[in-house]
Amino acid sequence: MDKKIQPDEKLAKILELEMLSVNEIIRERMASENAPRIPEVTSHLIGAGGKRLRPILTLAAARLFDYSGDKHLKLAATVEFIHTATLLHDDVVDESSKRRGRPTANLLWDNKSSVLVGDYLFSRSFQLMVEVGSLTILDILASASATIAEGEVLQLTVSKNIKTDETTYLKVIRGKTAALFSAATQVGGKVAGAGEDACKALYEYGDALGIAFQIIDDLLDVEGSLQKTGKNSGDDFRERKVTMPFIKAIKKSNKSELEFWKRTIEKGDQNEDDWDKALLLMQKHDAISFTRKEAEIWVNRAKLALRALPKSEVTILLSDLADYVLTRSK
Amino acid sequence: MDKKIQPDEKLAKILELEMLSVNEIIRERMASENAPRIPEVTSHLIGAGGKRLRPILTLAAARLFDYSGDKHLKLAATVEFIHTATLLHDDVVDESSKRRGRPTANLLWDNKSSVLVGDYLFSRSFQLMVEVGSLTILDILASASATIAEGEVLQLTVSKNIKTDETTYLKVIRGKTAALFSAATQVGGKVAGAGEDACKALYEYGDALGIAFQIIDDLLDVEGSLQKTGKNSGDDFRERKVTMPFIKAIKKSNKSELEFWKRTIEKGDQNEDDWDKALLLMQKHDAISFTRKEAEIWVNRAKLALRALPKSEVTILLSDLADYVLTRSK
Repeated sequence: MDKKIQPDEKLAKILELEMLSVNEIIRERMASENAPRIPEVTSHLIGAGGKRLRPILTLAAARLFDYSGDKHLKLAATVEFIHTATLLHDDVVDESSKRRGRPTANLLWDNKSSVLVGDYLFSRSFQLMVEVGSLTILDILASASATIAEGEVLQLTVSKNIKTDETTYLKVIRGKTAALFSAATQVGGKVAGAGEDACKALYEYGDALGIAFQIIDDLLDVEGSLQKTGKNSGDDFRERKVTMPFIKAIKKSNKSELEFWKRTIEKGDQNEDDWDKALLLMQKHDAISFTRKEAEIWVNRAKLALRALPKSEVTILLSDLADYVLTRSK
Repeated sequence: MDKKIQPDEKLAKILELEMLSVNEIIRERMASENAPRIPEVTSHLIGAGGKRLRPILTLAAARLFDYSGDKHLKLAATVEFIHTATLLHDDVVDESSKRRGRPTANLLWDNKSSVLVGDYLFSRSFQLMVEVGSLTILDILASASATIAEGEVLQLTVSKNIKTDETTYLKVIRGKTAALFSAATQVGGKVAGAGEDACKALYEYGDALGIAFQIIDDLLDVEGSLQKTGKNSGDDFRERKVTMPFIKAIKKSNKSELEFWKRTIEKGDQNEDDWDKALLLMQKHDAISFTRKEAEIWVNRAKLALRALPKSEVTILLSDLADYVLTRSK
């Protein structure tokens, strides 16, 4: 599995020239004459070997409709800026100590820089999308931004709450992850002149892909080891975030097990071996395989949405990409 | 002085009906079905008796050109949302304990809520301005956002640095304060169909007013007492922010005085009576009166810019407002 070229890498290869231009725009717009700290903070993140998945989605969607202009390049840079800004603000928020296996910006610099440089990237992304000059596209990105922010705030209000249900969890991840995926695909189609139905299909693909992606991300936090994911396994447990594997396990827990979740998640009273206990409970209640099944449902929805789009090499790779989400280990 | 009705209050009176609509838009758009914490956090700030100076500027500028539509109402709400978002992010950043004499949002809730609810307000403001449907106006607000963020980041990089000069200080306050004032006035004119020259004059008025406003704000932090300003006097000293009164004093300091500034501002090694010593040094070097003179220069520039605008009751009040900035105590 590891030696095969993954579908996101294949897409990146097909879109290589365009991605070079996108990277150039990112470098150019990240710079600030007045505040040299900005590229210092962002190049750390942007140079950290991210997969550039969101800009690739924008470029791929535009390619599906044989777009020959250059506005999609700015839009691809826009979504990467929004993504990076979100990461910076997440790092403040989560008090997380690792991101992609490296120390987070807020440990290398401080919370102040993370908040303000994030704001800078948001405003730069805003300038870029205004330059594209389409009110419809601005509307899509403005709504996505609001959904992202709502999802992040909702996540705050439900964390430490073992009554969190799957509907609420879905709202959170649709906001914090899927909204940018679906905006990325939609604006790529829109700028290329795709019709209503195609844009709706692009939205649905991005939405379902993003949801599957985040479910698997949350699953990896439960399953993963530090080497594999660059993320501390059990972070969500320690931060008392009730993700899908927890919801599945809590739903089937008996009275004494519920006391365990109350103590560790709600009260935050955690002992050294509690994470192992939590894992055992998840295994006992099949939480991990049930979570994986949910991710599979969303992957199938993503693939179904692709049927309404033009058939091409890119469509096949987008379909493979959806499958790949289920197998990724980082 | 205190019993007179101030020019900002007179403007608010003239624009009362419109301000009611703006408040209604703010209430409406602040709400989030998915995340009830949002209005909790923001109503605290938005209900804290702020003067709504920025939306008043937008409405006043539109009134100058006899605007009869309703798009200026959304733009006024937009600038208030941006302002509130900035305050929320500032509260995280500054570790300040007071804002308008009340505990800041990040003490009542936490840094997480401040960052994310700020992001939510930014995205709501973005939606509002997209609804107005003018790319020129979006361009003005996008540039202002970038300037604000750059100013805030620049402020980080120069704080704790006694070599900060007036040019750098000006860039900081033009970003963190004046950029939103000048965007507020400009978009009010633009939406009302004002021509190039008038929009330039509105920019210059807002820019100069904002700069004067911030210089006085920084002066009040040095001069003020807790009762008068709702702000702890000496906050900037304790947070080691080199504002204009400090720059003026440091410039004239002798060798041993420079050692004092190095110890207290650069190294952050501050004793209980150091703030009194700092005040004495500022008095010795006339830093306070020199700073006030700089503010007067900007007030005059603001009033000069008004000459290019239609003469009316509103223009006179905008001129009075500039004068009033110099006398305000909160």
